[in-house]
Amino acid sequence: MDEAPSDAQQACFEAGIKFGSLYHQFAGTPVSPASAPSLARAIEESIENQPHCRAVTVDIREDELEAALEASSADYTELTGRFLEVEIVVDYGERTVRTAMAMENGYPLMKIVSVE
Amino acid sequence: MDEAPSDAQQACFEAGIKFGSLYHQFAGTPVSPASAPSLARAIEESIENQPHCRAVTVDIREDELEAALEASSADYTELTGRFLEVEIVVDYGERTVRTAMAMENGYPLMKIVSVE
Amino acid sequence: MDEAPSDAQQACFEAGIKFGSLYHQFAGTPVSPASAPSLARAIEESIENQPHCRAVTVDIREDELEAALEASSADYTELTGRFLEVEIVVDYGERTVRTAMAMENGYPLMKIVSVE
Amino acid sequence: MDEAPSDAQQACFEAGIKFGSLYHQFAGTPVSPASAPSLARAIEESIENQPHCRAVTVDIREDELEAALEASSADYTELTGRFLEVEIVVDYGERTVRTAMAMENGYPLMKIVSVE
Repeated sequence: MDEAPSDAQQACFEAGIKFGSLYHQFAGTPVSPASAPSLARAIEESIENQPHCRAVTVDIREDELEAALEASSADYTELTGRFLEVEIVVDYGERTVRTAMAMENGYPLMKIVSVE
Repeated sequence: MDEAPSDAQQACFEAGIKFGSLYHQFAGTPVSPASAPSLARAIEESIENQPHCRAVTVDIREDELEAALEASSADYTELTGRFLEVEIVVDYGERTVRTAMAMENGYPLMKIVSVE
Repeated sequence: MDEAPSDAQQACFEAGIKFGSLYHQFAGTPVSPASAPSLARAIEESIENQPHCRAVTVDIREDELEAALEASSADYTELTGRFLEVEIVVDYGERTVRTAMAMENGYPLMKIVSVE
Repeated sequence: MDEAPSDAQQACFEAGIKFGSLYHQFAGTPVSPASAPSLARAIEESIENQPHCRAVTVDIREDELEAALEASSADYTELTGRFLEVEIVVDYGERTVRTAMAMENGYPLMKIVSVE
């Protein structure tokens, strides 16, 4: 049986859009420990433009960047999930969804933290 | 009050991820009427790799491409929402979510079509 | 007849790589007048990580952004060539190449300004 | 002393643009052995739209894909330089430049093969 989507479902859909947008817009960007802070701010502010998006928090993990650069002899690398911790809060109607991305078993897992 | 996310909410979140990924991975790709079919197939097959994704259908609107090229004197343009019609079906647990993207009022609107 | 590439040719090749990278990494990013400055800084600092790149200067044209938003009733848009003015300076061996991108006839033209 | 750019320098600049575009448009795309062929064709045909571009040849290395997937327990991964071999031929005026990308020391190196 079909249902009209609820506000909570709409909020989850919108949160997913923000995560997919964030990851696939910025994955591959050249990044170093020195340039990581400006990139993190730009990611937050650009995705917060999207509808229903209350807040985006991006941490580019400098410890993981340093580890990757020591292993490669290069002085920059490409942004990928290994270097990212992200939280996104979306409001839709009366509902709020909190979502997060972090590495689990070598895969950048995006998940719903709470539906309020 | 918090709730654990339901299968239907998880399905909506996953569908949103696919839409955001699709749009921000491929927006900006050089495209012409001749290259549109190979791009549409590649978009479908790449996004179908993502977890819980049953089917992705992409139509790159050749009428809109032709109109854009006539207006510009160039022989290719960049892929953007104006040229795209997309349907994505996601399964999560016992639930299926159908979603679609098309232009509404000049904006590429992504929406939930049904939650089954 | 083949020639080994000269330093000037290598510098031009490297400058082209930076322009293609910059454009196709960041085209499609959600952008508004408020978020344009952080995005411009992140683009500069990320592309300056690439080899042989002395300096990248990015201006996101807020007048064009405002004009696009007035026409659309939305409060953000997607980054594209229309909103960008970019200069890139590359050094290779003894040679320096200055390059720029700006709109010409509705197309974001990337060009060599000087080979020194 | 400044010089006006030669046709050979312009050809090298244009070839660099194609390489930067190709890499940063498509890096991060979800890819599996089954979807690699459609993605390779789409990359070739999309970049061949760009001005002065005679031919683009893309090989997505299925052996490297298989090795990456065995190591991760996932059934797809993200496109990155490790999986790509690319050749691009650009014509400008009377000159032709042949360029290639392949892995060297763990880094996806783009280089000029010949200037004719």
